[in-house]
Amino acid sequence: MNMPTEFPVTARSRLRRLPKRGSAERAQIYAILDAHFICHVGYVIDGQPFVTPTGYWRHGDRIFWHGSAASRMLRNQAAEIPVCLTVTHIDGLVLARSGFHHSVNYRSVMAFGRAARIEDAAEKRAALDAYVERLYPGRNAQLRPIQTRELKATTLLAMTIEEASVKIRTGPPIDDEADYALPVWVGVLPVRQVMDAPVADPRLAPNATWPAHLAPYVEGVGLSEVLTAAMNRKESYR
Amino acid sequence: MNMPTEFPVTARSRLRRLPKRGSAERAQIYAILDAHFICHVGYVIDGQPFVTPTGYWRHGDRIFWHGSAASRMLRNQAAEIPVCLTVTHIDGLVLARSGFHHSVNYRSVMAFGRAARIEDAAEKRAALDAYVERLYPGRNAQLRPIQTRELKATTLLAMTIEEASVKIRTGPPIDDEADYALPVWVGVLPVRQVMDAPVADPRLAPNATWPAHLAPYVEGVGLSEVLTAAMNRKESYR
Repeated sequence: MNMPTEFPVTARSRLRRLPKRGSAERAQIYAILDAHFICHVGYVIDGQPFVTPTGYWRHGDRIFWHGSAASRMLRNQAAEIPVCLTVTHIDGLVLARSGFHHSVNYRSVMAFGRAARIEDAAEKRAALDAYVERLYPGRNAQLRPIQTRELKATTLLAMTIEEASVKIRTGPPIDDEADYALPVWVGVLPVRQVMDAPVADPRLAPNATWPAHLAPYVEGVGLSEVLTAAMNRKESYR
Repeated sequence: MNMPTEFPVTARSRLRRLPKRGSAERAQIYAILDAHFICHVGYVIDGQPFVTPTGYWRHGDRIFWHGSAASRMLRNQAAEIPVCLTVTHIDGLVLARSGFHHSVNYRSVMAFGRAARIEDAAEKRAALDAYVERLYPGRNAQLRPIQTRELKATTLLAMTIEEASVKIRTGPPIDDEADYALPVWVGVLPVRQVMDAPVADPRLAPNATWPAHLAPYVEGVGLSEVLTAAMNRKESYR
């Protein structure tokens, strides 16, 4: 790919506070996006903000999400209004020696752009298949293919990332020097999003076995790790 | 408490899609809010939506969040502009027999209101202490108290929930009847947010031991479970 390694930084995405935590570095932004699959999309209707949790996937500098063709959210977003799509990983609770210095370890991306509807049936089908492949590389081969009526019932949006900013906090608490002698436990309580034991559908077909494409989703593994590996494994749909 | 058990439902918060997943039941909304501590706050500046991940806590029908007095986000929100505060728990990946019926199990609340700054020093101090107690009931007694200059450096916002809606998906995939015979593994891959082993501060005081107020944060326990229990245990700050 022949792209600049950084997204433009304007007043919209520039971090006013804590610039040491800010970076527009493209690889870091992609890494944060590719380690999750649920974002929070912000959009405005008649001056009122809405924040909706939504599944998403990335291809290059485009982010895709979808839903029912009857969705008010998607109908509004498809009008190319500005949206802010935020992805957050919570990595730990940070305990300090004063309430003031308690904090949270996290990685977060705010991506700005305008969403547009993808109308072309072939492009739509390929993108929706790519969503399944992004999560479970190889699964589409075992599924009943998308039907034309399903394509029609689905609104697919894509947003080219116009700007993005990343915020990250890592490491131990930073306390006032005078407080370090206090006899209170301080440090980080790490938080992880992990897979639990799979629950088979009660109506699972008798000849349906646990497939290779789900092997990475083993109990106890980190969701971020599985998603990142799957993203690296999936074949591009273009 | 003498409150209606449901928040008002208007065009803003009424779920246009999938009303079977919607409920304005207050107890359910509180339960979802009290099982997390990071929300996504949506707000609008000059027509542009922003979605910022933020720590929050609840007291009655008010939600609190805070940050640096220099924060652009908080300065804008304090002007009583409309905000949408969304809390989402991701409970599982739902695998179906067609791409179309793949889904996500989750619990989510969208809370609408207007944020206002809390200026009174005593009220501010009590609310900030309540944030620590909400996470770690009993911890404040071991901390160096908040200093006046820290109060001044902190902007504290509170939003009374004017309206809220909840969306939940649970259970196995719902497939087309014709697809149930397909020999593909389907079901739910549950996701949990869990505590990992604590990491003590490198500069921990030699006489600082692991305290009783952190006992619930044992490795492997669900974050939601700890937060819900802590919320039920904490003493009201009023």
